[in-house]
Amino acid sequence: MRPQDLIEKKRDGKELTRDEIAFLIRGYTRDEIPDYQMAAWLMAGFLRGLSDAETQALVEEMLHSGEVLTHDHVPLPKVDKHSTGGVGDKTSLVIGPAAAACGVAVPMISGRALAHTGGTLDKLEAIPGFRTNLTLAEFRDMLARCGISLIGQTKEIAPADRKLYALRDLTATVPFRPFMCASIMSKKMAEGIDGLVLDVKTGNGAFMRAYEDSLKLAEMMASVGRALGKRVVGLITDMNQPLGRWVGNAVETREAIECLQGQLDGDFAELCLELAAQMLLVGGVVTDWAEARQRIREAIVSGAALEKFRVCIELQDGDPRVCDDLNVLPQAGQSHTITAAQTGFVSGIETDEIGRIVMDWGGGRRRLEDKIDYGVGLYLHAKLGDEVQAGAPLVTAYYNDEARLAEMTARVRAAYQLTETKPAAQPLIKKII
Amino acid sequence: MRPQDLIEKKRDGKELTRDEIAFLIRGYTRDEIPDYQMAAWLMAGFLRGLSDAETQALVEEMLHSGEVLTHDHVPLPKVDKHSTGGVGDKTSLVIGPAAAACGVAVPMISGRALAHTGGTLDKLEAIPGFRTNLTLAEFRDMLARCGISLIGQTKEIAPADRKLYALRDLTATVPFRPFMCASIMSKKMAEGIDGLVLDVKTGNGAFMRAYEDSLKLAEMMASVGRALGKRVVGLITDMNQPLGRWVGNAVETREAIECLQGQLDGDFAELCLELAAQMLLVGGVVTDWAEARQRIREAIVSGAALEKFRVCIELQDGDPRVCDDLNVLPQAGQSHTITAAQTGFVSGIETDEIGRIVMDWGGGRRRLEDKIDYGVGLYLHAKLGDEVQAGAPLVTAYYNDEARLAEMTARVRAAYQLTETKPAAQPLIKKII
Repeated sequence: MRPQDLIEKKRDGKELTRDEIAFLIRGYTRDEIPDYQMAAWLMAGFLRGLSDAETQALVEEMLHSGEVLTHDHVPLPKVDKHSTGGVGDKTSLVIGPAAAACGVAVPMISGRALAHTGGTLDKLEAIPGFRTNLTLAEFRDMLARCGISLIGQTKEIAPADRKLYALRDLTATVPFRPFMCASIMSKKMAEGIDGLVLDVKTGNGAFMRAYEDSLKLAEMMASVGRALGKRVVGLITDMNQPLGRWVGNAVETREAIECLQGQLDGDFAELCLELAAQMLLVGGVVTDWAEARQRIREAIVSGAALEKFRVCIELQDGDPRVCDDLNVLPQAGQSHTITAAQTGFVSGIETDEIGRIVMDWGGGRRRLEDKIDYGVGLYLHAKLGDEVQAGAPLVTAYYNDEARLAEMTARVRAAYQLTETKPAAQPLIKKII
Repeated sequence: MRPQDLIEKKRDGKELTRDEIAFLIRGYTRDEIPDYQMAAWLMAGFLRGLSDAETQALVEEMLHSGEVLTHDHVPLPKVDKHSTGGVGDKTSLVIGPAAAACGVAVPMISGRALAHTGGTLDKLEAIPGFRTNLTLAEFRDMLARCGISLIGQTKEIAPADRKLYALRDLTATVPFRPFMCASIMSKKMAEGIDGLVLDVKTGNGAFMRAYEDSLKLAEMMASVGRALGKRVVGLITDMNQPLGRWVGNAVETREAIECLQGQLDGDFAELCLELAAQMLLVGGVVTDWAEARQRIREAIVSGAALEKFRVCIELQDGDPRVCDDLNVLPQAGQSHTITAAQTGFVSGIETDEIGRIVMDWGGGRRRLEDKIDYGVGLYLHAKLGDEVQAGAPLVTAYYNDEARLAEMTARVRAAYQLTETKPAAQPLIKKII
């Protein structure tokens, strides 16, 4: 077999066999197939398409390019949640502990901020001392000790994805469903889980803006996971505004802890309740949806979920006092409340722009090596459908770089669309598959 | 400008500007753009297509990636011929000297055998001592001294094409007209010529088998050359059987010298007369086609063309006695005549297979580093339309590797299609544009 023949086959729109996909992925992982041949194949795949069988083979070969974990030492169902990325999405910090408190083990391997979206690891690292770079041995040990561990990608998991993602980023082959599916699922299937809850975002803050595209991605990922013998449920959820009130790192951790302290109103808490309930259902801990929701609510209201988070923080070297005293979190030195220039209903928020404002003000990374200013963030006084008066608070910004205040104020105002009529409310959860 | 944005643009089927093409080709030539980004762009171009303007820009940027020769020291029209590659095509060895003998200067930069096709350089190097690796200074000096020089590609000419060709070969992006056009024309336009005669082969021994594809390639190349201010004529010629009677290296050089000695019958001589006449017309030496043909015929019959070849050989360190004594050429140690298994008319010859038989028997290269056995070759007793009797000679093989005789005999027989009815004759020259 020669790589150029497989490139030609895909170039001509033909379907590759399982063995051919294996040859490509194994050869590439071992540096036997050069980047330029893989780049040509990726572009041919992007433009000619991949069949379901090819996608399945791609996921499985990428999955088996590295270590595939098992957690037989933990006698609980293992369930994780994956989000395709959004703005203000801190659900992992709530649902991981909540689900763990209800009897599922949560071996969660998360990512960092990417483009305008936030990353769970960065929010966790806002907690002083919190260490996300555990070894796989520590990860497995933690799972046994407290039923949850929150870590970052390790070099042992799906090394093919690590190489391919870097290559796709530089060859304009990122936004293609089979590749996105393969990247996500090859990592998730290696975590040693029995079930997976997918939160596929849709809207102007998501990587897939169109509902149909998000649905297709969710269906593809669910199908791939089920073919690997996992229980998978997929939720298509709204990302036409930031989730919750806060966007940033430490500020989102604050909001997550407040939720675990019992603040259960608003879209953020609602999504947490639903996702965590789905984790219990997927894990087979309960079979009834209403009961699952009730169990999660109780775990939060009783303080059991917060207690689980506290133990997790302590075991990962973070400062557990954060659970009682939010002032432990880093805070920005300055704040400024941006007001509405006119009266009207909030009928649109450029969600990706809100994410970029936080990133550009120091709360995210332009390059992987950039340092994050954890305290930077925005508090949204007004969300979709709210009526605001001219001069009333729209957003309060927390920042350290005063020089950019005027620019950022203008950008925040421009990101809000105010109209005379109240827009129709949109459901938070659009579909469950 | 970032390469990934230009890859994305082509991926989405948009047209790149001249500046964008320049950025890509210049960056790639200087090793600033890596192979993997260029590979992704090549595949996107292959599958999305290139506009005429993009192709023109690509040719010009590749042309200007290296030295563009001028020959103001030679007060003659400069004309070259380029063939897209065939089997048995030794026309360069005849028409170069013949045209030079009639008052055009011929700065000819040729290639080597590629896949099943032969290469002018290899045929020239069959002449003991003949040196094709002249420096550009020697090349220009020779042009002034005898009006012709026959050399190989140098590192100064179109370095972008050298890099791109190697990359295309390994990424399944070779058979795409705009890239083929750019590869050929960027090199030819750098030779310092005023005019160019293109011999675009069509048929089962050509890289483009279908007539329409060959015609489109010819039109594209002619258009590109004319836009650069050159006079270009394109001939679509038949390659459904080897050209002439001999296929190999020394044996083809022999056939070319015999033609220069006055053997002017058959398809090979006919194509030489036509191509060389077109060179005179393109060079403006004569304006009338019949007169051009007559001039070339006279140059050959008078011995002036052979004399020009003799001087050229001598100046390039070859043994000029070859012009009078063909035994100077290397010869294979063994020969065997393969006979027809049945009686019939030759209605088809697998031309590419004939080329591969010679290559596989040592007369060509599988890899660039392979050594050529110059004496190996086939003599075709029977060509298309000929009637052969069972047991009559079909092909005489000249070889050194006796062990492969049975296999090669079977392959030769299988490459000939014999039928009861005589096939309709096909024109050698199908169109002139």
